Amino acid sequence: MSNILVSVELTADAFAPFGDVIEARGSPTSVINGGRCGRYHDLANLDFHESGRAGINIFQSQPIALPFQLRLVERHPLGSQAFVPISGGDYLIVVAEDEAGVPVRLKAFHGERNQGVNYRRGIWHGVLMPIEKAALFTVVDWIGDRQNLEEFHFKEPITITAQTS
Amino acid sequence: MSNILVSVELTADAFAPFGDVIEARGSPTSVINGGRCGRYHDLANLDFHESGRAGINIFQSQPIALPFQLRLVERHPLGSQAFVPISGGDYLIVVAEDEAGVPVRLKAFHGERNQGVNYRRGIWHGVLMPIEKAALFTVVDWIGDRQNLEEFHFKEPITITAQTS
Repeated sequence: MSNILVSVELTADAFAPFGDVIEARGSPTSVINGGRCGRYHDLANLDFHESGRAGINIFQSQPIALPFQLRLVERHPLGSQAFVPISGGDYLIVVAEDEAGVPVRLKAFHGERNQGVNYRRGIWHGVLMPIEKAALFTVVDWIGDRQNLEEFHFKEPITITAQTS
Repeated sequence: MSNILVSVELTADAFAPFGDVIEARGSPTSVINGGRCGRYHDLANLDFHESGRAGINIFQSQPIALPFQLRLVERHPLGSQAFVPISGGDYLIVVAEDEAGVPVRLKAFHGERNQGVNYRRGIWHGVLMPIEKAALFTVVDWIGDRQNLEEFHFKEPITITAQTS
């Protein structure tokens, strides 16, 4: 595996194997409040193990600088996990396929300020990586008493860089 | 009932009869990602009727100007409804108590840019009222096939103004 990963544009199609892009793109699903508000409806496949429930949290993350040395990914066996920015700027998203408990074929996406993502249950992903500015995110995930975190530490860090035109 | 309502600071205590304030206030509940990220955990009492499920939406709302003439409030019998800003600025929040199906004793709160709210199931509330700037909000609410909207139109509009120091 190459140890350099270049981030690409975050689109619903490209991200589909890993989850949903949560964004107000195109025309709203419906218009409410007397025409004053557009609703983009049901943008994420929420999937929570019955031993817990859905919850809302805020994550407050320090920024990273590019290129970034990624040493760790994680996954949550009991539920999907959605992140939508509150403050900050663009951010990096790293996901991977799984082969017998090992994250493989990593991909990096460049999330824009008004884009969120929802990781499907069990998908390997990097931790929050706001670029240059600290950021707050709304996080919707599984809440319960069981262990819901699995981490994988890479032997060699993976360098993530931004796409250059 | 007075037809003028003055917005007050949005605090967890003042808002408690109507729902939760979703914000990163004080120290985080836990620190994750090797010290890089604070988690403010489980900030909203989500409550969804079993005929549906939790979902994530984005609302894109036009702004209001102050003073604002409020003509309508609404409530959702089948679930709580949470709003957390993605973009925009401060916004107005109006809630009311219920007396035999009629919203009474209205209150207006001034929500800051990084504050969200979660309306308890069945609480009367005004529609989205971003002040001066259009805004996007993450919305977590009940999704299903049943009718989940009840509206109340006031005979006379209620004027909402900002608190002056």
